Amino acid sequence: MAEISVSQIIEALRRVNDPEIHRNIVDLKMVRDLKIRDGKVSFTLALTIPECPLRDQIAQDARLTVQALPGVHSVEVTLGAMSAEERQAVLHPGPEKPALATNNQIKRVIAVMSGKGGVGKSMVTGLLATALARGGHRIGILDADVTGPSIPKLFGVHGPLVGGDHGFEPVQSRTGIKIVSINLALENEELAVIWRGPMITGAIQQFWKDANWGELDELLVDLPPGTSDAALTVMQSLPISGVLMVTTPQALATMVVNKAVQMARSLNAPVIGIIENMAGFWAEDTGRQYDIFGPSHSQQVAKLAGALVLARIPLRPNLAALCDAGMIETAEVPEMSAVVKALESVSEEAMAQVRQG
Amino acid sequence: MAEISVSQIIEALRRVNDPEIHRNIVDLKMVRDLKIRDGKVSFTLALTIPECPLRDQIAQDARLTVQALPGVHSVEVTLGAMSAEERQAVLHPGPEKPALATNNQIKRVIAVMSGKGGVGKSMVTGLLATALARGGHRIGILDADVTGPSIPKLFGVHGPLVGGDHGFEPVQSRTGIKIVSINLALENEELAVIWRGPMITGAIQQFWKDANWGELDELLVDLPPGTSDAALTVMQSLPISGVLMVTTPQALATMVVNKAVQMARSLNAPVIGIIENMAGFWAEDTGRQYDIFGPSHSQQVAKLAGALVLARIPLRPNLAALCDAGMIETAEVPEMSAVVKALESVSEEAMAQVRQG
Repeated sequence: MAEISVSQIIEALRRVNDPEIHRNIVDLKMVRDLKIRDGKVSFTLALTIPECPLRDQIAQDARLTVQALPGVHSVEVTLGAMSAEERQAVLHPGPEKPALATNNQIKRVIAVMSGKGGVGKSMVTGLLATALARGGHRIGILDADVTGPSIPKLFGVHGPLVGGDHGFEPVQSRTGIKIVSINLALENEELAVIWRGPMITGAIQQFWKDANWGELDELLVDLPPGTSDAALTVMQSLPISGVLMVTTPQALATMVVNKAVQMARSLNAPVIGIIENMAGFWAEDTGRQYDIFGPSHSQQVAKLAGALVLARIPLRPNLAALCDAGMIETAEVPEMSAVVKALESVSEEAMAQVRQG
Repeated sequence: MAEISVSQIIEALRRVNDPEIHRNIVDLKMVRDLKIRDGKVSFTLALTIPECPLRDQIAQDARLTVQALPGVHSVEVTLGAMSAEERQAVLHPGPEKPALATNNQIKRVIAVMSGKGGVGKSMVTGLLATALARGGHRIGILDADVTGPSIPKLFGVHGPLVGGDHGFEPVQSRTGIKIVSINLALENEELAVIWRGPMITGAIQQFWKDANWGELDELLVDLPPGTSDAALTVMQSLPISGVLMVTTPQALATMVVNKAVQMARSLNAPVIGIIENMAGFWAEDTGRQYDIFGPSHSQQVAKLAGALVLARIPLRPNLAALCDAGMIETAEVPEMSAVVKALESVSEEAMAQVRQG
């Protein structure tokens, strides 16, 4: 019997998919060092992530597939890992981003991110939008937190989102900020959205390309916690000009926020600056300051990100009350002016222009 | 030409998949009220979720598929929605949960959930584990927050997780609490885990069934924020005895936590009680109490959940410091004793026994 050929084995391995990426392991350039001698086949599987929990499954699928070919006596599979560059090239091959409708012209897309939950991403997004709008900027907010949307409540706006000639119309806040959020599309704002990743991805892409944003100076994207589907979708599908990273003083938060910084770096999204929220509590009655969350660790985040801490916002009970009342646009938070200044000083060239559809 | 038959149309529609659920719309029982008259076909698509962002795509796929059949002149698709019971039956048909290895005997699995990020789920999990262990319980913690794991840092434990005869060994804390977390499996604890949903699901299932938990009175599962893949996986794959819901006083948090309560209810996971964290700040120097996050709204959560508020834990700077130092097991938080008592009072019958593998 003629010995089996390399090309026969490669063709067979095209039937083996990476269960996470949903592409076959040959196209993903995972099969390497393929050798055949006397019916003994050996190859290496270069995993995209060495700690992949599904690695044994992939290896077994590949082994059994080759083992089943006529002329194969034994199969030896070695597990390896791709370099960061290889992984990047395979997983994020090109700029295939969903195009905006031509009526939409958005100068800059700024992601507000943290990795950690409950640090005040949405509040910072709302305060920044307010500050920019007061300075004459035309602002939109895309609430990418599909399972825990907070933006509509902060601004006291309600749905429904209504369709028009150029896609659906964002809801406008009292000061004219255009807002899109899943909570504006739900019949009842407290309805749970129990969706797995692909649905989250679909919703965010639809918010981006099917809304009639019109002409905006800045679109702020409020990201949910974590470094999974929503963050990946925003960073891979939207032309992010830069990322503002929100943290709190606690070391525990710092560790998780650092993961988000790494994610932004690995996806080539520049970190514009760090905003420390809940930076102590100032008791108005006694004038005393309390480090409720311990001493600040945000310089560690800044160092890893290669960016500056632009603002430290203390806890103010009246601010929480304004947020709960949907009145964030009336809040006076002097610390935000440094963030606005930093955004304005980033040169137009450094900020990528949105591709037109 | 003979008129097209109902069965021909149904067979054609089997080729149309729900892009989120990855099953065809016929098996999902979405096609209803199918009528044919003079080549005019009409039917209703009962969506699993009425606000499904991909509904237009599904409807168009179905329309075009039927339109392409010979003998069809026109197609009218009406969008409808399933009832909660229908959705439950279609999406979560049966108890196909990954079995535990026979050496593992876990009396109760308690999920610590919130929906909202940063409310202190991990701290509550750590404090509860500590309180239960002090009372002589054998305790494990499964850190299901794969992209933002905090548990190892709270306990000051480090990896790696080492394999043994009965799966991999959890790391033990100073007081003997068995801990499994992605951060114990990473080479560097600050490494970002940038995974989409299926990888998150795979990791959590592996933590559950491949760890050598041994005999435990309680396994506490620390959930990440959100109502997406991680929460779905835990609720669908693990035999959850009950859920502890963590919230903060803010109305904004309440809204998002209510979404988690709805999720628990829709997946038949009983809410044992509510824990309000960050319930004001007590200044030790002046003895004054400050409602930093405004007046409490947690009774609203309790009412929706049909459960009691078991504890209100104020902010204490020294607690944050102990958490940052990995010394949570030395913290004295008297409010936790009511939670322990509530857990102990829940009858054994009411708590489902873990199925043995």
